[in-house]
Amino acid sequence: MSASDHRPAAVLHGREAFPHRHLTGIDGLQPHEIMFLLDEAENWAEANRSHAKSDHRLDGLTQINAFFENSTRTLLSFEIAGKRLGADVVNMHAAQSSVKKGETLIDTAMTLNAMRADVIVIRHGSSGAVQLIADKVNCPVLNAGDGWHEHPTQALLDALTIRRRRGSIAGQRVVICGDLMHSRVARSNILALTALAAEVRVVAPTTLMPPAVEQMGVTPFTDFDAALDGADVVMMLRLQNERMSGAFIPSTREYHLRYGLTPERLALAKPDALVMHPGPMNRGVEIVSSVADDPERSAITEQVAMGVAVRMACLDVLTRGARGVEGWA
Amino acid sequence: MSASDHRPAAVLHGREAFPHRHLTGIDGLQPHEIMFLLDEAENWAEANRSHAKSDHRLDGLTQINAFFENSTRTLLSFEIAGKRLGADVVNMHAAQSSVKKGETLIDTAMTLNAMRADVIVIRHGSSGAVQLIADKVNCPVLNAGDGWHEHPTQALLDALTIRRRRGSIAGQRVVICGDLMHSRVARSNILALTALAAEVRVVAPTTLMPPAVEQMGVTPFTDFDAALDGADVVMMLRLQNERMSGAFIPSTREYHLRYGLTPERLALAKPDALVMHPGPMNRGVEIVSSVADDPERSAITEQVAMGVAVRMACLDVLTRGARGVEGWA
Amino acid sequence: MSASDHRPAAVLHGREAFPHRHLTGIDGLQPHEIMFLLDEAENWAEANRSHAKSDHRLDGLTQINAFFENSTRTLLSFEIAGKRLGADVVNMHAAQSSVKKGETLIDTAMTLNAMRADVIVIRHGSSGAVQLIADKVNCPVLNAGDGWHEHPTQALLDALTIRRRRGSIAGQRVVICGDLMHSRVARSNILALTALAAEVRVVAPTTLMPPAVEQMGVTPFTDFDAALDGADVVMMLRLQNERMSGAFIPSTREYHLRYGLTPERLALAKPDALVMHPGPMNRGVEIVSSVADDPERSAITEQVAMGVAVRMACLDVLTRGARGVEGWA
Repeated sequence: MSASDHRPAAVLHGREAFPHRHLTGIDGLQPHEIMFLLDEAENWAEANRSHAKSDHRLDGLTQINAFFENSTRTLLSFEIAGKRLGADVVNMHAAQSSVKKGETLIDTAMTLNAMRADVIVIRHGSSGAVQLIADKVNCPVLNAGDGWHEHPTQALLDALTIRRRRGSIAGQRVVICGDLMHSRVARSNILALTALAAEVRVVAPTTLMPPAVEQMGVTPFTDFDAALDGADVVMMLRLQNERMSGAFIPSTREYHLRYGLTPERLALAKPDALVMHPGPMNRGVEIVSSVADDPERSAITEQVAMGVAVRMACLDVLTRGARGVEGWA
Repeated sequence: MSASDHRPAAVLHGREAFPHRHLTGIDGLQPHEIMFLLDEAENWAEANRSHAKSDHRLDGLTQINAFFENSTRTLLSFEIAGKRLGADVVNMHAAQSSVKKGETLIDTAMTLNAMRADVIVIRHGSSGAVQLIADKVNCPVLNAGDGWHEHPTQALLDALTIRRRRGSIAGQRVVICGDLMHSRVARSNILALTALAAEVRVVAPTTLMPPAVEQMGVTPFTDFDAALDGADVVMMLRLQNERMSGAFIPSTREYHLRYGLTPERLALAKPDALVMHPGPMNRGVEIVSSVADDPERSAITEQVAMGVAVRMACLDVLTRGARGVEGWA
Repeated sequence: MSASDHRPAAVLHGREAFPHRHLTGIDGLQPHEIMFLLDEAENWAEANRSHAKSDHRLDGLTQINAFFENSTRTLLSFEIAGKRLGADVVNMHAAQSSVKKGETLIDTAMTLNAMRADVIVIRHGSSGAVQLIADKVNCPVLNAGDGWHEHPTQALLDALTIRRRRGSIAGQRVVICGDLMHSRVARSNILALTALAAEVRVVAPTTLMPPAVEQMGVTPFTDFDAALDGADVVMMLRLQNERMSGAFIPSTREYHLRYGLTPERLALAKPDALVMHPGPMNRGVEIVSSVADDPERSAITEQVAMGVAVRMACLDVLTRGARGVEGWA
């Protein structure tokens, strides 16, 4: 590992290692705090490989997954993470929710709080909704994706995957390609990777590139081929269906020609460059199957596995105070 | 506490304290039986304040929440209650149910029974549906709201909230305002509060006032201001969206002017009168935010907290016989 | 029991008794393997009668119920089965799934696998979908119904019900009546019952009879009355709503006249013939209430009860290898 991967977690104890009550985003986290969560997740990644995966540290705690947007992977991942830790996990789906009856978001938050949730995991279509709820409740809140704002556990699982597969994060040239404009995944990844001293390049057609993206410490490209030069990691973003026609791109075929990851294009990166995708993939659009399914190059299923580990780490760490773990009061 | 709050629970033991197999409604319960459930719930209200909320008395028991109507709060509340007691809780949502395939309600009940449910919690859009199921199954049935009939756990949680905040229920002047006609919440509350010797006034526009409501032992008003005189508790009902236009009220604005709870109107009640609402609220329609959010006056979030406690008490008490608890055989 | 019910399970130990990794269908199972699962289920049928139904053998294991088709009974049954064994059970419903976002089935399978599921239960509208997933994952896969292909746990619960109620399966004359063409229930039942040496007759209008059905070892009839002669078991199939009009049958009334099970028609079978139906029933179409609800003749609710027992047996047996149970490595 490079010098910038140096982890002061060994000298910081308890609450000092992670002094935050919530995880609403990567923004505001110190590099050593991110590293602390990755180290914790590393333990769970190992534990999850065994068939005796259950742990009881969250026994008697109530975890509410309040998902105002549909989701499969992220909800499953948080649900499995909580259950493996022993929590009583309950899901609240938007489709059944009082939100449909016109209840305000804050009233929903107050309701979950009054039921004495010990940790609330929230996915919401509006940027900032998670922070709004976090400000109102007495328990830790975990952001599972809010609008175009942040998806911090995705960034953590991606960082963990990179660290495991590439040995370090600092100094890695990471190319993120796709709809940067509307991607909370990209935003959280840029924040995490730049904090951990990776060199981040972002690639998108101009219609999907956020204005002034350089201010986030990344180098923007419209030419994917040029960006791939010397890349250690190629992270593809999902092209959302609602962006597939109309104002943003001429057609998915055109998009694929310029921004799809093919073996030919991957050959422009380093010979052992890692391929990543947050899923679900549009095969044949942003990535082709021969690349996605190459076990030597693709880390896509490992990302999913790291997702559960990272979420177990976050659920554990954020509830330590309430559980009276020594040093976390 | 007043004399009528006197609780003979101390002299009645086991099954004598609550001789009912099901909880289909408040109707048919003796005042001391209601008080017994409130006393039991009081213990859970305390237990829920701690971070070691889990109890194992329902370990190995299967609780099926059969919700034929959408619900967030009530389903979450029953699910959390069951899980905190250790039950295996499974939810059956109408949207996935065989009911859509034309199965009769009784066949659904027989199916849940054959799977050896130990307790079934039912919400259904039709009055009497819960009783129909209770008659067919071998396990206790809990009514989580059926049509315009009853919602007994809501009445219990409201009574518990009043007892905690006002010291007693007997003698309290409780004003219930809103759509009395279509409200199972109001019906169950009237039954519980009159049984416990509160003085109940009901307020509604004539189009939303049930005929012959006086026969339930309450005093009807169409003038909210007049009803508020000397009120100890002001319980607002939710105006359902489907009642907001058309035949029942001229407009939500008009409704708010005559039946919305504002600080000015609340000033007509006792200076320390308690404000209640079963949620979800239509802020600006039946209640304004400055009243709903006043921690000194509003008990709205406490109602939610008491909901979990009351449901834990009901799940515990109703399964005592099957669990072989001494005195409950 | 007859000679053909003779069970060699006593001489086969551990993995030899059931050498399969998955349960994708009855096809490919040896008669003694089917009998082994029935014997295991018999134990759970007894255990489920008590109020201390929980077992902890699947503690720490993650069971994912991936239901790409709506289902109530089967999902509830698998969920209850898993929870009674101590598993962490999570449900993935099609409605919330990435499949809607265009993800391939294999990508979904790889995702569930990467989350380290220990057993995956799948229902899918396409025949063969379950096998496709079973080929891609590292854990046992249980088919909960795929297209018109198989529904093996239904056949097992039906066989168990017959064995319990009739004393044996071999030599029993079983009449299966209804939409044979589109029924995975019928297909799996035919495979199981013929393997266990029952005499199987199938009855359907010609439009709903699969071509060359005799090759499955059954005798086809279009005349229900003729088929009923000497029947020990009459198994009715559900007429799916989508088959109720149009090309397949003239009308439900016509269908009922020729293929509905009435007391008059049942009188053509043996005096103690057993009536079965997988549910949910269309009362008045394929079966009338006086037959369905006759406790002496109908085994319909017992089928539901056996469903939970059979699924507990399958979940237990298929995970023995991974759990390191002696002889199952």
